[in-house]
Amino acid sequence: MTDMGLVVVGAAGRMGRTLIRVIAETPGARLVGAIEHEGSPVLGQDAGVLAGLPALGVPVTDDPLTAFAKAQGVLDFTIPAATIGFAEIAAQARIVHIIGTTGLSVDEEARIDAAARHAVIVKSGNMSLGVNLLAALVRQAARALDADFDIEIAEMHHKHKIDAPSGTALLLGEAAAEGRGVALADVAIRSRDGHTGARPRGAIGFAALRGGSVVGEHSVLFAGEGETIGFSHHAADRSIFARGAVKAALWALGKKPGRYSMADVLGLSD
Amino acid sequence: MTDMGLVVVGAAGRMGRTLIRVIAETPGARLVGAIEHEGSPVLGQDAGVLAGLPALGVPVTDDPLTAFAKAQGVLDFTIPAATIGFAEIAAQARIVHIIGTTGLSVDEEARIDAAARHAVIVKSGNMSLGVNLLAALVRQAARALDADFDIEIAEMHHKHKIDAPSGTALLLGEAAAEGRGVALADVAIRSRDGHTGARPRGAIGFAALRGGSVVGEHSVLFAGEGETIGFSHHAADRSIFARGAVKAALWALGKKPGRYSMADVLGLSD
Amino acid sequence: MTDMGLVVVGAAGRMGRTLIRVIAETPGARLVGAIEHEGSPVLGQDAGVLAGLPALGVPVTDDPLTAFAKAQGVLDFTIPAATIGFAEIAAQARIVHIIGTTGLSVDEEARIDAAARHAVIVKSGNMSLGVNLLAALVRQAARALDADFDIEIAEMHHKHKIDAPSGTALLLGEAAAEGRGVALADVAIRSRDGHTGARPRGAIGFAALRGGSVVGEHSVLFAGEGETIGFSHHAADRSIFARGAVKAALWALGKKPGRYSMADVLGLSD
Amino acid sequence: MTDMGLVVVGAAGRMGRTLIRVIAETPGARLVGAIEHEGSPVLGQDAGVLAGLPALGVPVTDDPLTAFAKAQGVLDFTIPAATIGFAEIAAQARIVHIIGTTGLSVDEEARIDAAARHAVIVKSGNMSLGVNLLAALVRQAARALDADFDIEIAEMHHKHKIDAPSGTALLLGEAAAEGRGVALADVAIRSRDGHTGARPRGAIGFAALRGGSVVGEHSVLFAGEGETIGFSHHAADRSIFARGAVKAALWALGKKPGRYSMADVLGLSD
Repeated sequence: MTDMGLVVVGAAGRMGRTLIRVIAETPGARLVGAIEHEGSPVLGQDAGVLAGLPALGVPVTDDPLTAFAKAQGVLDFTIPAATIGFAEIAAQARIVHIIGTTGLSVDEEARIDAAARHAVIVKSGNMSLGVNLLAALVRQAARALDADFDIEIAEMHHKHKIDAPSGTALLLGEAAAEGRGVALADVAIRSRDGHTGARPRGAIGFAALRGGSVVGEHSVLFAGEGETIGFSHHAADRSIFARGAVKAALWALGKKPGRYSMADVLGLSD
Repeated sequence: MTDMGLVVVGAAGRMGRTLIRVIAETPGARLVGAIEHEGSPVLGQDAGVLAGLPALGVPVTDDPLTAFAKAQGVLDFTIPAATIGFAEIAAQARIVHIIGTTGLSVDEEARIDAAARHAVIVKSGNMSLGVNLLAALVRQAARALDADFDIEIAEMHHKHKIDAPSGTALLLGEAAAEGRGVALADVAIRSRDGHTGARPRGAIGFAALRGGSVVGEHSVLFAGEGETIGFSHHAADRSIFARGAVKAALWALGKKPGRYSMADVLGLSD
Repeated sequence: MTDMGLVVVGAAGRMGRTLIRVIAETPGARLVGAIEHEGSPVLGQDAGVLAGLPALGVPVTDDPLTAFAKAQGVLDFTIPAATIGFAEIAAQARIVHIIGTTGLSVDEEARIDAAARHAVIVKSGNMSLGVNLLAALVRQAARALDADFDIEIAEMHHKHKIDAPSGTALLLGEAAAEGRGVALADVAIRSRDGHTGARPRGAIGFAALRGGSVVGEHSVLFAGEGETIGFSHHAADRSIFARGAVKAALWALGKKPGRYSMADVLGLSD
Repeated sequence: MTDMGLVVVGAAGRMGRTLIRVIAETPGARLVGAIEHEGSPVLGQDAGVLAGLPALGVPVTDDPLTAFAKAQGVLDFTIPAATIGFAEIAAQARIVHIIGTTGLSVDEEARIDAAARHAVIVKSGNMSLGVNLLAALVRQAARALDADFDIEIAEMHHKHKIDAPSGTALLLGEAAAEGRGVALADVAIRSRDGHTGARPRGAIGFAALRGGSVVGEHSVLFAGEGETIGFSHHAADRSIFARGAVKAALWALGKKPGRYSMADVLGLSD
């Protein structure tokens, strides 16, 4: 079997260069195109060199049409307007489109759905395999255990983070709430200070720690009488999103057109 | 709806008395019988008083036949020979039989299977909800993630424990191996010391800590490039086995005759 | 060497009975008296039986004077008014007085100081060896590391706890602030939710989790660039306060009159 | 006050380049020299560019004499033979010499001692602030707590590590043994498998986990009846050794000639 040929769009960005490196070290995947916008100073540079690797013989171009025609998949962590365009070209080329772009409007999402009639699209706000696995298993745990088990979600991030709880903590909270068949907003306790009273049955609590250079730690606890079950995720660097995207591409090759999630990639959708 | 009437066999043992206390505090369950062997000095005593509670109006007897006839279920953490007898009486009475007894021979297991044609039997070597939940989810995680993720299992127990790894650590290792479609014995690394060489791909590693009065801590790690996913279980006291047994009884009421596992109780069998 | 003879005051209370059990299992210590208030229904009962042990030959009395005269130390987790009285009798008897009673007024504290001119008094709001050790080491760590390391304190307690952060979390925060030479009130961030902005340099953050039957977990993190140092304490049951008190008594025997802390007992005062 | 001028020797190595980057971001420190061996291809290159930074105006040279003459300190993670030479030049220049080089012979150590009559030398086999802090506090904890507390040391490293336990785990074990006044070799249990028997009183146990890309996790537990105290260190990247070296240099400026350890830098020697 030949390797899956992949195009990276937004090749000069931090995530683009990480994608190039991860493709280079993943058996079964091969970089066949690297796209930047018209007028980018890196056009013509070798994509490998751009990513800090030896030359790969793939120059950066601003021509997705030609690049997609030679590829089986495209990896896209760009901006909504760009992603919409790429989705149309990928659908015409009938290739896999992995989308890590966030912030799409309802309208833009509808255009992704339209493209998914012809292309295999995997789209997720968080491409990490670990976080998606955790969310799927937390949902199941919440369904299996009743409210005798108290759910608490703790996270820690670096000192520069400016909001709390983290988006991933809320994603895990949503998964727990879904498993319980409740709305997170109805049961969330987002912080505790002072006279709180006893913990309400069925609540989902959050706690946020900040410090140092911590990339991201999350844990979900189910605390019952005499036992506690814990789920945790530790991110050491941001390459995990690129790794998840490449896994998704390899998984998607040969699937029927449609829109998929990382839970599908993990075989854990339910 | 009326409470489910439960009989505790082996009522004077440590687990028997714990079962009596857990039934007393569980909504939907009610103690209706307490059995000890012929000649036991506690025959005639009130089962509640025996368990350190106020009197429950249930004297300990050595007559399971009469007790089972008035009950919907029996909780049994005794010895194989006793359990075989109770299974036959429970099958005749067509009531739920929850079996935490361990060490049955192949022959004895076959007699449990026979009884399960008429009674609802839930049997497990570890009745803790948390451990069974963890095992089911670890199996799924191992199936979803490939051998790019290294599986490690750590456990800690009190200083009196005389073997390693713990039975529960091995149970979790079996679950991980099943998820991967391999035999644990083929991939287990049970300890590390000295020049070990690099970690073999696909191995499942174990590590054991001993100290203090720790009841039981287990964790299963899936360590990949840039991220680690963790699953943990913390047992604070041994009442969790009794709690799991009572949950299993309430779940089993009204089910079709047959033999079930704690994964069934949790809705996680697959 | 003969065992140190100890009197337990408030012998019928939960902590009193725990103290009796811990003395019975501690080499070098021996119960020689058990005191309850006048009119208590347990007067005359054997103190061992009261604590769930075999008889110890020590009946509960309401006469501390006679009991203290035969003892080398008294263990006291009662109420301020009672503690003041016991301190005076202990001072007259020139024996060790271990005080775990909390909530004394400034006036009552002064009377303890007065008694300490004649007796060896060890008084602490938390008699656990582990928590006191942690506080002493956290103070040193905060002194050794500068504000490049961000201090965060997380705690988890059972679902019935009605306030946050825990007293012990605040005690650990005070220790960290002292090590840094700042006032905790000036730097504490007691919870985080919503748009928090980046972490202020020098802040000490708190986070509280609630759930299940968790007796008490505390952790203190020092998070720097590229590394995090953690300190943790896990309490499995409340007997640790009794154990700390008995250790304190054995340590205090033969010391010069004065008022000591648990840091002194640990050899960590500075 | 002007910045402390620092020279990096072995400037083109991985640690050399990390040192250049850490100096550039540390207030109070400034790169004034970068040394490589005669004939190195990077001679003449700007040291900043070599380290992936903008140009710093410091070309790499092979002339330590001239470089040390303009500096207040030198940072040295090289090889024993080179370090001996640098120590003599640093002693003549009467500047601070921070040595992270390992593997020196007894003879070579004696020459370092000789150089320390004229220069301020800080030498350590592990320059991380966190690990050194942990070792100092573990030593104190082991001294404060008796053998009622069982000491266990767990570590986790990436899948490529070929030995166990890690050097740092052994260093922490030595610190614990010193605090207890015993020899580690007499009490170490380096792994557990099979029928181990109950834990011997006073033992120090080790456990090693391997997986993924984990840079280094260490924890030391003191497990007693009803409570466990834990100390942990998490390394996210290898820059922590460079950071510790730069801190050591800033601390050493103006100290009396002599040989110091990282415990001195932390104010924790005892």
